[in-house]
This record gives sequence, C-alpha cells and structure tokens, in this order.
Amino acid sequence: MLYYSQKANASDSVTREIETVMAQGQTDYQSYMFLHSPVNGVCIALDGDIQSCAADEALYHEALVHPALLLHPDPKRVLIMGGGEGATSREVLRHSSVEQVVMVDIDREFVELCNRHIPEWSGGAYTDPRHETRYEDIHAFLAEDGPRFDVVIGDLVDFPDDDSPAAAFYSPEFYAQLKSRLSADGLLATQAGPLTPATMTHHNRVRAGLRESFGAVQSYAAIVPSFYSLWGFVVAGRSLDGQAPGAIREQLARRGKERGVQLPATGLDALAGQFQLPELIARKIL
Amino acid sequence: MLYYSQKANASDSVTREIETVMAQGQTDYQSYMFLHSPVNGVCIALDGDIQSCAADEALYHEALVHPALLLHPDPKRVLIMGGGEGATSREVLRHSSVEQVVMVDIDREFVELCNRHIPEWSGGAYTDPRHETRYEDIHAFLAEDGPRFDVVIGDLVDFPDDDSPAAAFYSPEFYAQLKSRLSADGLLATQAGPLTPATMTHHNRVRAGLRESFGAVQSYAAIVPSFYSLWGFVVAGRSLDGQAPGAIREQLARRGKERGVQLPATGLDALAGQFQLPELIARKIL
Amino acid sequence: MLYYSQKANASDSVTREIETVMAQGQTDYQSYMFLHSPVNGVCIALDGDIQSCAADEALYHEALVHPALLLHPDPKRVLIMGGGEGATSREVLRHSSVEQVVMVDIDREFVELCNRHIPEWSGGAYTDPRHETRYEDIHAFLAEDGPRFDVVIGDLVDFPDDDSPAAAFYSPEFYAQLKSRLSADGLLATQAGPLTPATMTHHNRVRAGLRESFGAVQSYAAIVPSFYSLWGFVVAGRSLDGQAPGAIREQLARRGKERGVQLPATGLDALAGQFQLPELIARKIL
Amino acid sequence: MLYYSQKANASDSVTREIETVMAQGQTDYQSYMFLHSPVNGVCIALDGDIQSCAADEALYHEALVHPALLLHPDPKRVLIMGGGEGATSREVLRHSSVEQVVMVDIDREFVELCNRHIPEWSGGAYTDPRHETRYEDIHAFLAEDGPRFDVVIGDLVDFPDDDSPAAAFYSPEFYAQLKSRLSADGLLATQAGPLTPATMTHHNRVRAGLRESFGAVQSYAAIVPSFYSLWGFVVAGRSLDGQAPGAIREQLARRGKERGVQLPATGLDALAGQFQLPELIARKIL
Repeated sequence: MLYYSQKANASDSVTREIETVMAQGQTDYQSYMFLHSPVNGVCIALDGDIQSCAADEALYHEALVHPALLLHPDPKRVLIMGGGEGATSREVLRHSSVEQVVMVDIDREFVELCNRHIPEWSGGAYTDPRHETRYEDIHAFLAEDGPRFDVVIGDLVDFPDDDSPAAAFYSPEFYAQLKSRLSADGLLATQAGPLTPATMTHHNRVRAGLRESFGAVQSYAAIVPSFYSLWGFVVAGRSLDGQAPGAIREQLARRGKERGVQLPATGLDALAGQFQLPELIARKIL
Repeated sequence: MLYYSQKANASDSVTREIETVMAQGQTDYQSYMFLHSPVNGVCIALDGDIQSCAADEALYHEALVHPALLLHPDPKRVLIMGGGEGATSREVLRHSSVEQVVMVDIDREFVELCNRHIPEWSGGAYTDPRHETRYEDIHAFLAEDGPRFDVVIGDLVDFPDDDSPAAAFYSPEFYAQLKSRLSADGLLATQAGPLTPATMTHHNRVRAGLRESFGAVQSYAAIVPSFYSLWGFVVAGRSLDGQAPGAIREQLARRGKERGVQLPATGLDALAGQFQLPELIARKIL
Repeated sequence: MLYYSQKANASDSVTREIETVMAQGQTDYQSYMFLHSPVNGVCIALDGDIQSCAADEALYHEALVHPALLLHPDPKRVLIMGGGEGATSREVLRHSSVEQVVMVDIDREFVELCNRHIPEWSGGAYTDPRHETRYEDIHAFLAEDGPRFDVVIGDLVDFPDDDSPAAAFYSPEFYAQLKSRLSADGLLATQAGPLTPATMTHHNRVRAGLRESFGAVQSYAAIVPSFYSLWGFVVAGRSLDGQAPGAIREQLARRGKERGVQLPATGLDALAGQFQLPELIARKIL
Repeated sequence: MLYYSQKANASDSVTREIETVMAQGQTDYQSYMFLHSPVNGVCIALDGDIQSCAADEALYHEALVHPALLLHPDPKRVLIMGGGEGATSREVLRHSSVEQVVMVDIDREFVELCNRHIPEWSGGAYTDPRHETRYEDIHAFLAEDGPRFDVVIGDLVDFPDDDSPAAAFYSPEFYAQLKSRLSADGLLATQAGPLTPATMTHHNRVRAGLRESFGAVQSYAAIVPSFYSLWGFVVAGRSLDGQAPGAIREQLARRGKERGVQLPATGLDALAGQFQLPELIARKIL
C-alpha cells in the first residue's frame, strides 16, 4: 500500500493511504504530487507539504479570501499571489464588487497541471473576464507601475526555511514592495500555518512581519479536517487598527449578508466565528 | 523509537512519538496506557483510543461540561458517568450553583491510576465536599431510587462497536433509565466522536438516539489539537426544543458572564462559537 | 514523503521511502506499481506485494532458476510459468544446454510495461532465438499436446488466499497437469514465500503439495536484502528422492563449474549453501 | 497500538507492533527498552537500536561466539566485552575446553534488568563456576596485568557515531590495548553491523580497523530473521592469515563435530555456511 506521510509538529505525524499518484514531478520552481486519497479525494503536495484536498479545499479557500474582502468597504481590484489551483480566484470572484483579479503565479507548468487534473477547483474563474493570470515573478510584478490593489491575497507556500527561496515572501523588503501597490485602506490576507499550541512559530513570525509593515493585524483560524490541524491566517491593514474581534465578527456577518456573498462550505456565521480562538491558542499569539 | 498510532478515519492515521510508557495494563474493565508524548504531554489511551492529552485536555473537558451547565437555569445536582481522570468533575465544580456531583465510574483501578499518574487533572475535585465517587455499574446506580439530577455528563468511551459492552451506553433502554433520573428541565451532554465529513456515523447515531429519548438535541464541536480532529458533542433535553443556535450562543455567553464561570482554556466567546459549525460539516449532521 | 508499506509477518512491517511512482494501474489480471526506491532502485509490486527490486533481483532470480537446472543432468527444454519481468528467462538462458525456453505469461500488458520500464532486467532474453513468449493461460497451455519439459520454473505470485484465482496454481489438479508435461526425470522449482519461523505456513503448504504430486522435494533459501526476509524456494522431482542436502550441495557446486555457469550475484558456493538452513528454520519445515 | 520503528538503511524502516513495554529507562550508561513483540517475543533495544529478540537471539549469539572458538585450537580463557544479556557467556560455556570466562560489562543496572526480565537468556551461565562478571570499564580492565585470553568476543553496541563514547571501541588505541591481552594465536570476534549492499560502511570500518591491528580478518554473516537484515561479523587474528573461506568452513564443521559442540539454533553446517557470502555482498566487502 502507498502512503503519504508528513509531520504535523515536532513529534506527531499524519499518514494517508494513497490510492493513486495521479502526477508527480518537478517544475522549474517546485516539486509536485497530485495524490488520490480514499477519504479526502485529490490532494496536492508542493515541496513535500500537502496544500489542499478536494474534500475540503473550499473551507481553506473561503477562509483565505472572504475575511479580507468583507472587511474592505468596497473591494474592486484584487491581487492573488500564487493561487495556481484556481480556487482562490474562484472565491474572490464571488464578490460582485470585484472588477479585476490579477493572479500572479510564476509556475505556468503547475497551473496547467491543475487545469488538467483538478479543473473543477477553479470553478470557471479562468474564463471570467475579470480574471487575468500572469506567469511571472511576483517581485518583478510588484516593481511595475500600475493602479493599486484593494486586497492582496497571499496563497504562497507555508513554512519556508530561512534559506528557502520562499523565505523572501516573508521579508520586510517584500512587504514594503507589497505595501507600495496596496491602496491606503487596502487589506492583505495570507495563510499563516497551523495554529496549535505546539506550532505557533511560523504564525507568529508572519504576524510580526505584517504588523510591522502594515500597522495592524488580526489572526483567525479555519477548521480544515484534511489538514488534521486548525489552520491559521492573518489579515493585515491600517483599517484594522483598534478593531476588537467582536466588531470584526459583527462586520463580517453583516456585510456578508448585505453583499449576498455565498460561502457554501463555511457559511457566514462560522466565518465570523473564525475570529474567536480558544484561549489556549489565543494566549500563544504574540 | 516508540510510537502510538491510531486511525483518524477510514484511510488516514496519526502516529505519535512516545517518550515513555508510564503505565500499561488491563483493569477488570478496560486496557489502559499512560503515554508521554513530547508535544502533548501525558496521553491516556483506553481500549486502544486516545482519550485526552495533558496539553489540551482542558479544551475537551470544558467543552464536555460547560454548555450543559450554562444552558440549565440553575444546575444543583450533577451526575458524571465515567470521568475517571477527574477533570470532568473539576469543570463541574467551577459552577457555584452546584451542590452535589456524583461521579459513577465502575473502574476503581483506573481512577487510582489517574490519581497516581495525573493527579493534577482532577484539580482538587476529589477533596471538594460536593464531590462523591461511586465505583459501581452505572446501570445499577440508575436503577436506585433517589433525587433527580439537573445535568448528566456522559464521559464514556467513544465508538463502541455494536457488540462491545459499551454499546449498551447508547441504547434506548439506557437512555430511558437515564431519563428517569433526570429532572424535567434536565440536560444531558455527552462527547460524540470526531466531527469531520468522513467520520459522522458515530455522531449521528448518538444524536438520533438522544433525540428520540430526550426530545431535542444540539450538536457542537470543540477544537482539541491533540485529537487531530474537530471533536463533536451533543447536548440533549426538552428545554432545547425550538432553540436556534444563535439563541444558544447568546445564552451561553450571557450566563457565563453572569455566573462568573472561568473557562481558562476555551474562554466564553469561543465556547459559544462551538455551536457554529462550518456548513460542510453541518450539512452532514442528520 | 511517499512510502510503500507491507506486512512482513503478523506483527511487523517494512516501510520504504518512494521517490517516484513510475507507473501504477490495473491490467486485466493484476494491479501493478513500478516504484523507485532510493536504496533498492526500481521495485515492482503486484497485487500489493513487492516482487523484486533492481538492487538485488539477480539474487532472487538466480536462486529461482539455477538449482533446478544444475540438478538436472541435461536440461534442454524449460518452461517458465509467469516471469513477466524477463529476468527468469535471462537466467535460464545462461545454460548452454538449453535449446528452448517457453515463457507462458497471461498478462501481455504487464510484460510490455516491464519492457518499457525495466528493459535491462530481461538481459536480452527476448531477442534470444531460444526464447518464446506465449501470452496465454497456463492451464490452457498445459492442456496442449507437445514435447515434455525438462525443467519447469514457477515464477508466480506468492501468498494466494484460498479464494484468490492464484490459489489454483497450488492445487493438486494443477500439479497433475504440470506433471503430465514434465519429463520423467524432470524438475520443477518454485519460489515458496518467506522462510522465517513466523511465516512458514505458505512454504509448508507449497512443499506438501509438491511432495504429494512429484514425489520428492527440497527446500532452500536465498538472502535477498530488499525482501527484508530470507526467501524460500522448493525444487521437486522424483530424481531428488533420497538425496541428502550434502549431496545436493556437492552436485550444484561441481556441475556449476563443469557447465561453466556464471552466477554474478550469488556465486556457485553461496548457491550451494542455500540448501543449508539454520536449524531454527529447518525444524519448522514440515 | 504501540509500535517500535527503526531505520533499516537510508530509506527503509522496520515497524514492529509492541504488546507491552516491559521496562524502559536510562542507566548510567545507556537507555534501554524491554519490549514484547507478538512475533519475536521480548526484544531489547539499547540507545534506540534493537539488540536481540527472544525468538532468534540464539542465531545471533551462536554466530557471535562459535566461529572464533572453533577456529582456535584450544580455547581456555575467554573475554566477553559487554554481553549483559548473558547469552554470549551461555554460548561460550558450551565449549568444554573453556576454563574461564570473564564478562566485562560496565552497566550493572542493565545486567540486573536482564536477570529480572530475561533470566532464561543466560541459560545458567551466571551460576557456572567458570563464569566471572566484572562491572567495570573495559579500558580499565584491559590496562590491568593478567594472563592473556585465547578468545575475545565483542558484544558491544553497533553503529557508533564518530562522536559517541562507543566509538572508542573501534579505535586503533583500543585494539592495541586488546591485542596486549590476547595470546599470540588468539582470536577476536565481534558483531559488525548489517551486511547488505546498502549498509556496508560500518562493517568495512570495523574490518579495516581489525585487519590493521590483528593482521588478518574474515567476514561472515548470520541470518537473524528478527533483524530483517543479514547480520555481519568479523573474526580477526594472525592465525587466519592466508586461510581460504573453504578451509575455514571445513575446519568449523570438523572441529564442531570433534569437540561435540551443540548449536541448537544454527547447526554446524549452517554455521560453516556463514562464511559463504553472496557475491553481490562479498564484492562490497573491502
């Protein structure tokens, strides 16, 4: 029997039976596996980390996208960094205020693999006239001139080692570049690693970096069963300054209803609830 | 290296490094292991299932106890079925209205093992004059005459096979016996297995049984990182009939404040949030 | 990380890191995986059992083929049952006395997969004029009329459950059919499962069946590191009757030298030594 | 379920179900586990490596002891370095020529644990008047004056890292010390790690060190099913110089018979056969 196994933290690991390795290889930028799990359907691993599984990718992508868009008063232009599976854009496009989504993913081969193996994940995003894919380096893209974005969604690899190329995505220089392309009341959201008492380092590093660059941050977390861990996110932006979690929850629920946004996997109430963390975890958020 | 491994669902499993097997054996009623995990501290396994780990047992036991007690207008007499680690009684005793806690656990040897290996889990419950331990069969206890209980907490083993002795704890006969010792506005809460799309069978069976016997049920779920799964609970009782989850959440938060109950691991807001389930899971609750 | 894991016996298992799943699927007859292991190179699994790995398949195939051929006074016609990797025929063709090898493998698709993924395993056998491949059912082939074989090599799947189609390969009916196509002094050799004190059942069953049908049997065993177990074989034939292991060893070593047969992986001395089993194991051979 | 898992080589590992952890801890010198495996009985792990299992420890200990004793013309005084399980002395004492066995094991606590948990492994050695246990550092012992030994058996931990204290057991200085206490025609035998194409480094290091110090070496290997690997040994001594493996095998078989030594697990023929290695492995012995 084939298995895929990955550490969940310093001492525990999760092992998944794999029915079929649908595709496996190395693009110019990363190694990939498209695996079929009996319980979780197609799971995608990049550089040895499970990214999402068909069974509940919607829980992950809804959590990644909707808080930032709902906390913004009127999101029109959205930048997705990464997002090759197409599901992030799918979620952004649920917002009728959005006029333009630019997805910048350097890895054309991976995007094509997703289109071949999991076309349904993009939910039609690639044929939506508001969506544009740019296969280029995000640093080069940000260095261009151009209109500012209302919301930036970071759907980048997790857990970079300090010496990984991905570590650049978590550097002050990168955040400064990002800020220069974000509108004054703009918001940035990014996934920020597992949120459990034993695995806070990455989350707190992301949080500290974003707070320093963007002024204010809020952590939240989604239940994604196929991750076998609560999953952390951070939304950042000056407009969050001084907002209590209760006010954020109220705003999410209210605007979700007003704007008629459907969250088929999460629901609006549970989305708002993602900003209520158990104390045992909240205490470890620095 | 020693490991403890357990299926999380039909195709995935969780494997934990074990530093020390502190105790391992068989009482008259069950097999037990007290294991020390680097990340989660002491973990207790009964009949091959991890029950709780020191790192976050409080998240589990707070979720098991407080919703039922806070949803009751004035809980005075509480029955705990099982609960040998002592942590369930510790949580019940946080409620100043409670005058009597009767913990009925048939397995004296296991209770003594807990007192030796994890005395801090009971948090002084065993020396509280309101607490009484009875080492007897729960069916015999329930058959006795005696004052009715306001709240019953079921801290019994999970996942009984149909032919396990524990299956009796989920039978209509048992529920009828229980009901005869519950006050008219009484509530029963029980853990009810993992709550993920791939593992709903046990939860829905518990729920169906309780609804038939007690009239109305509400499912809720707690994040317990060391379980590597969202964990489900059911609270049952006639007084829940017709209550919307929103009203329940409001009641939990309000009464928690009014009664001054401290939930150090969960917090009152997150406890209330446990009744907001993601749609993907909520849809599978029958 | 991907792994392939398989039970070694009732309580232990072997887990192999897998770099690449080169091919995986289902032919009309069996499921297959061509896996690349860092330590053992390409490993082939059929119906969930590792069959051979590139690193030491020669140890397995030399043990399967050469004892029977060297114990026969003048092997000219050899039948291979199965043998789709081509390595069994490669070993048979090392014997200059051999005039004809008929390999009967029902699974053309698997043979073609081997030619694509591990062409070097056949070592040119398929272009040797003495070799003939027949893609047909072995029972149908044996039912044909035709000259008798001097040696039959059984390179069939191991461990059939009683209700598996492969169980027919170990039935008295099949052995009777085989015998009708074997010359009077003919020999049959077959792999016969792992040979460890904890896993003798399959070996002893094969042995008992062959002894009943062919009169005399000898067990022997090869060290194949990638199997993580000593591997058992049985050679059967009337001419073995009354031969002591010492005489067999002497004959193997002498004829190997006389006939100039090269065994690059095993060597003649070690091949002869395969008939010396540790007492702990020999005692369990029934 | 509890498991014990250990790497077999750079990419594969063996995982064993463990019924009971009979004892586990840390002496002044090493960490230990006494584990009960369904298939292999009591297994002892020291510093994270399985040392022996009840099911086939006799195969290991017979291979460790008897070649050296049988290759010596008249072994009277035998030194065992390590050997805390008692099984090494048990094997030495099978030789009626032996007048004195000195077992030097620094770890009294471990020897006592063995006496408590696996007393049958010593087979009465500790009450044999010829046996003497000395709980002291082997370096100190060797520095003493005293009669020379005919045979030295090294039953020390395997695989020392270069920076482990055990690395001293494989140093030229240690071998020089050893040589000063070995008689002129004396022999030393030691276990020397797994003998598979993927794991030759340790064996070849031991071999090179012993050859440099003692003049001549012979590698041999035993099948020990519970190790899931062929296991290597080296016997060293000037008297082996120029001896072909064939002559050694003949000598082992002949002297074993002459001296009436019983090898219940291995048998004399299979013991002699341990000096015939498959070419694939022999080629990698440097």
